[in-house]
This record gives sequence, structure tokens and C-alpha cells, in this order.
Amino acid sequence: MRKVAIVGVGLIGGSFGLALRKAGYPGSIVGVSSQRSLDQALERGAIDGGVTLEEAAATADLIFLSQPIFGILETMRQLGPIVRRDTLVTDAGSTKQVIAEEAARSLAGCTFLGGHPMAGKELRGAAAADAELFRGRPWVLTGEPDHPTARVFRKWLGLFGAREIILDAAQHDRLVGWSSHLPQLASTALAAVLQDQAPDSAQVAGPGLMDMTRLAMSSYELWGDILQTNAPAIGAALDAYIGKLQALRADFETEFGRGSSFARGLREKS
Amino acid sequence: MRKVAIVGVGLIGGSFGLALRKAGYPGSIVGVSSQRSLDQALERGAIDGGVTLEEAAATADLIFLSQPIFGILETMRQLGPIVRRDTLVTDAGSTKQVIAEEAARSLAGCTFLGGHPMAGKELRGAAAADAELFRGRPWVLTGEPDHPTARVFRKWLGLFGAREIILDAAQHDRLVGWSSHLPQLASTALAAVLQDQAPDSAQVAGPGLMDMTRLAMSSYELWGDILQTNAPAIGAALDAYIGKLQALRADFETEFGRGSSFARGLREKS
Repeated sequence: MRKVAIVGVGLIGGSFGLALRKAGYPGSIVGVSSQRSLDQALERGAIDGGVTLEEAAATADLIFLSQPIFGILETMRQLGPIVRRDTLVTDAGSTKQVIAEEAARSLAGCTFLGGHPMAGKELRGAAAADAELFRGRPWVLTGEPDHPTARVFRKWLGLFGAREIILDAAQHDRLVGWSSHLPQLASTALAAVLQDQAPDSAQVAGPGLMDMTRLAMSSYELWGDILQTNAPAIGAALDAYIGKLQALRADFETEFGRGSSFARGLREKS
Repeated sequence: MRKVAIVGVGLIGGSFGLALRKAGYPGSIVGVSSQRSLDQALERGAIDGGVTLEEAAATADLIFLSQPIFGILETMRQLGPIVRRDTLVTDAGSTKQVIAEEAARSLAGCTFLGGHPMAGKELRGAAAADAELFRGRPWVLTGEPDHPTARVFRKWLGLFGAREIILDAAQHDRLVGWSSHLPQLASTALAAVLQDQAPDSAQVAGPGLMDMTRLAMSSYELWGDILQTNAPAIGAALDAYIGKLQALRADFETEFGRGSSFARGLREKS
């Protein structure tokens, strides 16, 4: 793995470059992105320079797609006819089924390994990139983890301190519907209902409300793609959550017990 | 204010004692609590010693009630016949209307100032007490802030770094129904539905799920009293939240915008 191309050098792409460098990766790291993102990433030391997708396709051993989901799908279609046969294409998209389906259509000529680093922060862009972003966080892989470059790539993920989890794409999308997409919507709906009904409650906000509204700061620009590409799992999770909120009143004590078990278990595991 | 008695020397009561000491309060601080809590509070330096409620009532200038709500109500009834006329009784109960009503019945012979420090942490007990717990946090006062001892008490709250907010009891309960009780139930229900439907999603938990399930670790022991004494406001907030979750699907983009406005506004204010 002598050359890595990062397509979409934002928070995740920039952090991937910085993490590679920090872990001692000696090869070349190039970016395919807007000029503004390339400038930020260059300044942070996340990439060595910017190239076109065509140049990346012709020269990179690993192509890392870290755009929003629909951007990844479009890049896959563009890569299809130009990518080298021995290249490994991987991605950081937040849903995996539509991406796996597009890979089967467009990237049959090379190897594709689906990926999802479960990491992030409130800030966006390469300016906020962080070599330690993936430490202790799950990095889900779907697809073919045994390709020679995939083995090398996974070794670097280990050096980032990420926890590799291998799942199939459908299983991934179901699980993140619960663990990531539902919490996002719970936070957004909470903040939106407070905005509508009780904006004056902000004056008595404690640390709990800060926790519960942090995700609500996320932009729709990022989430639109996720909501659209995991609609059935998200719909089912939302329905179950609404049902639980309705059931809560009948037996607060039992639900506090259940909730507390899950929340504590989560902290023991991590 | 030469002598302060803290009734219920747990996290809040212990932190009150430590904050007084740190701010330079030179008088005596005594505790009325279980032997175990008194021992912990003594060890932490939050109190000078333990006394009975009768001794506290006979000697303290300020009596600070920091028990669970039903404990506070019971202590008020016990204090009624024995408290000195010039004593200021204040409290740290999380709902204020039932406490204000009990004060009107039981503590007409002295002065009562309702209070609610909007601070806390996951740990309980005086062992977890923290002189800085109130810094930057709202401390709501309801009732009579102009009693001479109340003026002194408020001066100390200012020295703790707390932000004094004066509200009437009904207004307080409505606002915290939105800003504190609804977020608690949103977190509990989220963790409970994950426990029921997708306990395996814990393996792909990111930082957002950690934020959204932190409150779910709270114990029913603390929340039972709150849910019971603010039931109408909580019911209305829960209904509105369920309605918002149902409406969300129709227009994710608008609700992300609203939620983001509230969440960002909250951070600019604090």
C-alpha cells in the first residue's frame, strides 16, 4: 500500500490521513476534494497534495471514499470504468446496503470493502480533523476483508486504536438504525419541540439537556442521505421508540430499570 | 448566618457544605442525615458534625433541605412546630409547587425560600460531593428572597458561581418539565427500547449514543418523587414530544433546522 487516495477530505477523510501519518504510514497520501478542503487538509498535514479522481484511480493502491453517501455512490459510478483491477476501494459511509449494491454494479472490476468508522464530532471539515478520532471507536467492515491490501488497511485501523467489527451490510444498517439514527432523531425531536413549545426553558437548562441536545446540532446536509438510505430500519426504530414513550407512563419504575441496565451495560463494554 | 444545618447530606447537601467552605464561610455547618452519610460528609469536610433535627431547628439560622422531595415534605412537617421564628428554611427539591404548598401549611411560623440548584452528576452521596458543582449552573429561587438571611444566603450562591434565577413555583415546574424531566424520559425510553429490541446494537455504539443514554443511568429512587409531583407538566411535555416524533418523518429538514436552532441557542446562552 504505497499510495492512498482520500476522496472527500473533510473531518473523516482528513482524520484518516492524520491517523495514517501518526501511525507511521510512510507512503503517499493524496486527496480528491474541493480546493478549499484540499487547502485545509494540506495545511493540517493530512494529505501530501490534491489530484483528480482519474489520477487517483490510475495510481492509488487504496481509495478511501469519505464523502456523504450520495457523493460516494456517484464516485463509485465514476470509478467503475477507470479504476485499476488490483485497487482496493473502501468507504466511510454511514449506511452500507445501498453502497454495497452500488459496488456490486459499478466496482465489480476491482475489490470493494465497505467501511463505517463510528466516530465524529460537532465540527466539520479537515480543519477539525484529528489523528485520534478513531481511537477506541468501532470501525465496521462489510464485504471482503481478505484482499491483500485489505489486510494492510486493517492493520492500520488497528494502529489507529479503532475496534474492527465485521458485519454484513444489512445487519450494519439495522444496528445503526437503533444505535445511531434513532438517537439522532430523538435528540432532534427533543430540541425541536423545546424550540416550538418552551424556548424559555433554556434559562433553566442543566447538563442533562446539554447532553440530550448535542446531536441536534448535526446538519441535515449530512443526515438527509442517511435518512433516505436507511428509511425502513429508521421507521421501525422510531415506531418502537414512540411506543415505548407511550408505555412509559404505565410503569415508570420498570422502564427506568430497563433503561439503566442498557446504559450501564454500554459503559461496561466500552 | 452563623450556623447552617444541612438536612440530607448527599451529593447536593454535601456539595453545598463544601461550596460554603471553599467560598470562605466561617460559621458552623452541621448535618442531619443517616450515620453513613454523616460519616462520608465529615470525611469530606462538608460538615463539622451531625445533629438531630430538633437541635438543628433550635440553633440554625439557615436550614437547607436536600433530601428527595417526599423527604423534604416530611421534614417540613416535623420542623413546623419546632423551628425558630427567625430561621430561614430553604430546599433543593427538583419540583417546587408541592413544596411551596407544604411550606404554606407547615412553615408559616418561619420564612421559607424555595430553591432548586440545577446541578448534579451520575454519582450519588456525599462521597461524590464537589465544591464546584454549582459553578455556572442555574439556581432557581421561588418565594421570599428579601428576608435578611435570604440576602446572605444569596450572596453565598453568587460566590459559588451559581446563576440565580427567580421564578414562581408553577413557572419553575412548567419549565423544568420541558428542560429536565422530558429529557430524562427521552433518555430512559431510548435506552429501554434498545434494551428490549436491539441489545446487540451496543457493539456499534458511538459517542452520540453515550450522550443520549447518560441520563438513563439515573435511578428511579430519585425520579419517582419528581414524576409524581410534576405529573401534569410532564404528561403535556411527553405528549408534545411524541407528536413531534410522529411529525418528524413528514419533514426531516425543517425539524433538523428547528432542533439545531434550539441546541445552538442553548450553547450561546450558557
